[in-house]
Order: sequence, then structure tokens, then C-alpha cells
Amino acid sequence: MKMGVPGKTVSVGIIGLGCRGFDQTKLLASMPDVSIRVVCDQYADRVEKTLEMLNEVSGGKAPAQGCTNAREVMERSDIEAVIIMTGWETHIDLAVQAMRAGKTPAMEVGGASSVEECFRLIAASRETGKDCMLLENCCYNEEEMTLLHMIREGVFGEVVHCQGGYEHDLRDEIGNGDINRHYRQRHFKNRNGELYPTHELGPIARYLDINYGNRMVSLVSMASKAAGLHEWLAENRADDPRLVQAHINEGDVVTTMIKCARGETILLTHDCTLPRPYSRGGRIQGTKAIWMEDNRSIHVAGKTPQKEEDWSHSWEPDRKYMEEYRTDLWKEYLDFGKRGGHGGMDYLVLRAFIEALQNGTHLPIDVYDAAAWMSVTALSEQSIALGSMPVAVPDFTDGQWLDRKDEAEGPYKLGR
Amino acid sequence: MKMGVPGKTVSVGIIGLGCRGFDQTKLLASMPDVSIRVVCDQYADRVEKTLEMLNEVSGGKAPAQGCTNAREVMERSDIEAVIIMTGWETHIDLAVQAMRAGKTPAMEVGGASSVEECFRLIAASRETGKDCMLLENCCYNEEEMTLLHMIREGVFGEVVHCQGGYEHDLRDEIGNGDINRHYRQRHFKNRNGELYPTHELGPIARYLDINYGNRMVSLVSMASKAAGLHEWLAENRADDPRLVQAHINEGDVVTTMIKCARGETILLTHDCTLPRPYSRGGRIQGTKAIWMEDNRSIHVAGKTPQKEEDWSHSWEPDRKYMEEYRTDLWKEYLDFGKRGGHGGMDYLVLRAFIEALQNGTHLPIDVYDAAAWMSVTALSEQSIALGSMPVAVPDFTDGQWLDRKDEAEGPYKLGR
Repeated sequence: MKMGVPGKTVSVGIIGLGCRGFDQTKLLASMPDVSIRVVCDQYADRVEKTLEMLNEVSGGKAPAQGCTNAREVMERSDIEAVIIMTGWETHIDLAVQAMRAGKTPAMEVGGASSVEECFRLIAASRETGKDCMLLENCCYNEEEMTLLHMIREGVFGEVVHCQGGYEHDLRDEIGNGDINRHYRQRHFKNRNGELYPTHELGPIARYLDINYGNRMVSLVSMASKAAGLHEWLAENRADDPRLVQAHINEGDVVTTMIKCARGETILLTHDCTLPRPYSRGGRIQGTKAIWMEDNRSIHVAGKTPQKEEDWSHSWEPDRKYMEEYRTDLWKEYLDFGKRGGHGGMDYLVLRAFIEALQNGTHLPIDVYDAAAWMSVTALSEQSIALGSMPVAVPDFTDGQWLDRKDEAEGPYKLGR
Repeated sequence: MKMGVPGKTVSVGIIGLGCRGFDQTKLLASMPDVSIRVVCDQYADRVEKTLEMLNEVSGGKAPAQGCTNAREVMERSDIEAVIIMTGWETHIDLAVQAMRAGKTPAMEVGGASSVEECFRLIAASRETGKDCMLLENCCYNEEEMTLLHMIREGVFGEVVHCQGGYEHDLRDEIGNGDINRHYRQRHFKNRNGELYPTHELGPIARYLDINYGNRMVSLVSMASKAAGLHEWLAENRADDPRLVQAHINEGDVVTTMIKCARGETILLTHDCTLPRPYSRGGRIQGTKAIWMEDNRSIHVAGKTPQKEEDWSHSWEPDRKYMEEYRTDLWKEYLDFGKRGGHGGMDYLVLRAFIEALQNGTHLPIDVYDAAAWMSVTALSEQSIALGSMPVAVPDFTDGQWLDRKDEAEGPYKLGR
């Protein structure tokens, strides 16, 4: 591969121009082989601001037009892809519309509102022959890719248990007064579940070959009381009675246990309304090693040096392994120079999509991955609503997971 | 209090003289106000070895006799307490026998085999007027006592979520060939559940006022596959076909979620058959702070200094807080000089029992605590057997938890 050498031009439309949409649009605009033809948001001021940015970036040569109705994007004949960066609850519906309009959609991350919605996504893909990518940037983060590489190289032995979380103090953001435009706030007020699983579940799904020889079979979720956001709002938004008096439904800490067909367990934590440093709470345990994100350490049986002061087995910093097992993609990326947000992974996940379109290859995170990962949100809400009953995770592949091979190609390929 | 100044002599009998029983008996023998009158184990060689040790420690003046039948201990008229350090599955039955014989029992830790067994323990206590102490040493560990103090002082705000684990690579110990005498091995071969919850659950129960204004309402457990021990035995016990071919039932990682009446959640991890450094996996989250054992760090909202290099909130080492909130008991203990195993807590938990007997005060970890904490093992096995169904945790207090006060007194008191 030749990172940074433009491929054939891909023409795209973009829907959703909030904070995330604006930033990713700017990043796409920096790619010489991406032509942004149309940008869309229900709020006209966002469209205007984005068009201004695009004109600035292109020196006035941007071909992009603006609109406030997604239907206009779908009807364009000059785009092959639609990138969806709206609020969580419209991702699947817009992706279905895009496929039916003959485009290949890519969706920003978020959870599903129902399991049926996930099946609808797959049905649209099968009927139209179009695939759909979930833009799970964390799958392309350096650590997660290195860990996947280490697992494939056998460092962990047989992997038995994985943990991850979206552990991010968002009280300040959720307590923002702009209710209409705030995609997360109304979810926290009204829902109770694992609202945002894919940042950790996406990489874990690859560690465990989910959809490629393995699948999630059942899950159980439990929510703590919701105390953190209310207390914070009373102290920090005292001037806004709508917020101070708001009922918050989402438990501060929502824990989800998932059982896989091959017997592995996955533990997910959603933790966004209590004070805390950010963490994706990663942990990988196999018969030969354990890795943990919160202390950035690893213990490899028989290899990690035993410290004299430890009466138990010792940890060692994971840095040596992170360097030894760095992927070819990340080696080249570091030479090329990281760009875009979130430590560089935002750029890679967009390139993964664009280059698959350029090469006509299978999307590296496809419609089955999207359905399985996103369904965890709806299923966790069901489990909590039923008093932490176990609920079955559907097989979205109709049994194909048993011996499904990942048809993606090249350095962005993640599956087996 | 005057640590180290002998109180009135307490005469005890001891049942169970394996590794743990031997070490704790030796520690008891070092206390001038404890008179060990009888020691008992089903294996005569253990009895002999213990008597030899007692004679050595006392310069030949030990009054202890030996026996291999627990019934003989119960029948003694010269002891007021029975300390039970046998295998897990006999703790409750022996404690019931001791209470019925007019003695006050103290049991080493372990989980219950059934919920009914826990009710039987309470029934015996009510009928006899005798209490029963669970010797949960971790409740008296320095960090756990300091954290309890911090919670009571409001450092964490409203506590919402706690985690803990027994995360201890025991493959070498479990893979010991001496099946008959190995109390843990047959459990791992035949059971599947949270076998050993109390080291972390005991302290957490105090953090959350379980039995004193709060109680555990329901739990769900999930077990990973059992891959670690079998692989280890094949590689390390190749000469013993009984072990290499043994079926292992206990999942390598068993995760348990518990919901409390006031809305808090507790997450427990049992993790003993994969390679890993030891951890009790502590984590406390409240509306004002988070503490985590695995990185020995804390973040207190508005207090923890923000590091320039952190884009998210920062951690700080917990040491400052550990010193500032050290309990009076531990201040005195450090002056007095730590002794006994496990960082000094083994000594304290025994003193908590002995001094309550000397002073005629309520046991600091009582029969209701023992029943509630130990029941988690049996309940987790039920949940796993039922495919991770939620199961109800009984109210062992018959509603008294609503406004129950801890009647223990002095520096060893833990409850409210």
C-alpha cells in the first residue's frame, strides 16, 4: 500500500453536520481522492457553516451543495456513498434509505433502538446487494490493532474473557441546555441500557472472531441507580429548572455480560454520569496472558519478569509488546504522519471505507458486524426492563458465522 | 484501646489444621490472652504437627489436646469459642454444632453450598442465643478500612457502584495431586459459580451498609468456559492422568452482578485458573469520586489536580488519601507493629473476635453478615445453572435491615 497516494476519486454525500459530522467532513475534505458533493443537516446553520469550511479548505473550488432534507442526498445520481453522522436513532433508517437508493452507506457509531431495526438493515443489504459499514474508529486505534495482532500471534493463548467500557464523564456535555440538538441528552433522560457499546465491543468482537467462527449467544445487563447526573445538574445548572428537575433514567453504571458460542465471556461497562478519567476499560485474558488498559500492563506466563518485591505474579508495562507487535498499517501510518481526531484512528476508519470503495473490495466492518454490535444496545435495554433477565442475541448471519470468512482485503482487513 | 495488653483469657477450640488452620493457630498461640485447649483435624498427622508447634511456642506449657473428631471439641466444657478452619463445605454445619453446644463459633471464609444452609445458621443462632463470626480478614485490611472511612467521611459522595474480585492464579495449588486433602480442587472440578466471594464482598458490604439500611436484592452470574486449568494440567501434570483427564467445571472467569435495595450495583469477579498477578479488583464509584485498585489511583471531582497532558480527567495516586484517612485502629496497629499473615489483617480479624468475647460485645461480623455474604456462592451457582437467570437474594434479617444498627463496639466495629 502507498498511504497518502490518491486512488480513484470517490464521490460522497454527507448527512449529519453536528460536532462529529463537521470534524469528519473536514477530514474527508483533506483527502484528494474524496469529492464531497452534498452535505445535509436538518439545521440550516450547520449546513452553511460546513459549506463555508469546505470552500475555505478547497480555496473556493469545493463542488459541495447543501440541503436540509436527507431525501435530496439519496436522490443524487453523482454520489456512490453516503456517510451518516446524525443522532444515533436515525443511523439505520438512513443507511437503509441509502442502500435502496443504490448507494453504499457508512454510519457513525451508536446503538440500535430495536433488534428488528438491525434485521431491517440486513434485509436492505441483501435485497439491494449493497453493503453498509459501521465507522467504528476504535477498531483502527493503535492499541486495539496491536492487541488483535498479538491474539492472532498466540501471545494470549486461548482467549477466554474480554472486558471493555465506555467510561467517560459526559455530565458537562449531557447537561448542556440545548435539548433539541443534543443527541445524547434525551437518551439519558429516557432510556436505560448499554447505550454506546461499539467502541469497546467492536475491537473485542474481532479478538473473539464474532461473525467469523463465533457469535454472541446471550447477554444480561444490570443498571445502577441514576444519581450522578441529577446531583451534578442541581449543582451546575441551577439556573435551568428543566434540567434540575429532569428525571434521569439511565443508570450511572450499566454492566453487561455477554456469552459467546465458543464459551468466552465479554463484560461491558457504560459509565458516563459519574466523575472519572476516561477509559475504554480494556482487559483481555487468555490461557497464556492477561492485558489490562487501566494500568497499561501485561503479564505473559513464563515471559514477564518476576519482580522480587511481588509475592504474586508480576505485571510489566505493555509498551514493549505494543512496539513488537505494531501492525504494518500502523507502522506505515506513523511514517506517513497521524492526522485527524482521536489519536489518528478517525482518519484510518474513513480510509478503510474509501479505499474499499476504490478497490471494489468487501467493507472491513460490514452490515453483519453493524447489526450484531448495535443490537447489544436494544438487547441490554430489554434485559434491564425485565429485571436483568438473560436475552438471546440473534444470529444475524443465518448460520453463516459457523464458517464465514472475511472477504475484506488489504491492510484494513480485521476479520478472519 | 491498648493494643497488645492482654485482656481476660479466652479459651478456644480449633477445628481444621490445614495450611490456613495451622498458620492461624500459631498466631493465636502468640496471644497471651488466648488459651488453645483443643485442636482437631480429621487427619491425625496434622493434629500431631500442630500440637508439636504449640508445645514449641509455649515452651512445653501448652494445655492443648488433640482429636480427630469435631464432636469431641463440641463436648468440651472448658472452651467458650470454636474457631473453624476446615474446608468450605463444613463451615456452617460445624458452626451450627458449636452454637448448639453453647459455644460461640468463628468461621474462616468460604461460600455456602445452599441458601438453606445459610438460614440454618441463622436459625441456630436465634434458637441458642449465640452469635457466629465470619473471619473475613479483608474487612480489616488497611486499604479496605481506610476506604470505608473515606466513604463515611463523604469523599465519594453518594456511592453508586462497587467492584471487587478474587483474582488469584491458583493453578499450581489446584493442580496439586493430593485430591483428598485439597479443599479447593474438588470444587473446581464439580462446581461452577462465584466460589469465593467474601474477600471483596465483605468490605463492599460495609461500604454499602448491607444489613444496616441496605441489602442485596438480586444477582446474576455468568461463567466463561473452563480452559485455563485443563491446559495447565496437561502441560504441568503430564505424569498424573487423573489430573490431565479431569473434567473442570468451574469457568475461568465468573462474573456476578448484584443489585442492592438502595439501587447500587456490585460487580464481583472470580478468576483463579488463568495466569495473572493477584488482585482484589477493587473499584468504588460515587457521585464525587472514583477509586481503583489496579492502578492504585483515585480521582476526586474538583480536588484531584488536572495534569496538563491529560485531555480527560486525571488520576492521582491514592497514597495521600490512604494516609489522611487511615483509621485509628491502623494507626495504633502500625505503632504496635504488624504481625501475622496477609499484611497484618489476619491478626486483626482474630483480635476482633477475641476482644468481642472478652468484652461481651456484639461480634463485628455477625451471623447475618455471614449468611448474606456466603449465600452469594450458592445463588451464583443457581444463576449459572439457569443460564444466567436473575435470582433473588433472601432477606436473612426478616426485614430488620431497614433500620438495623450495628451493636458492635470499639475500634473493630465496621457496621453502622
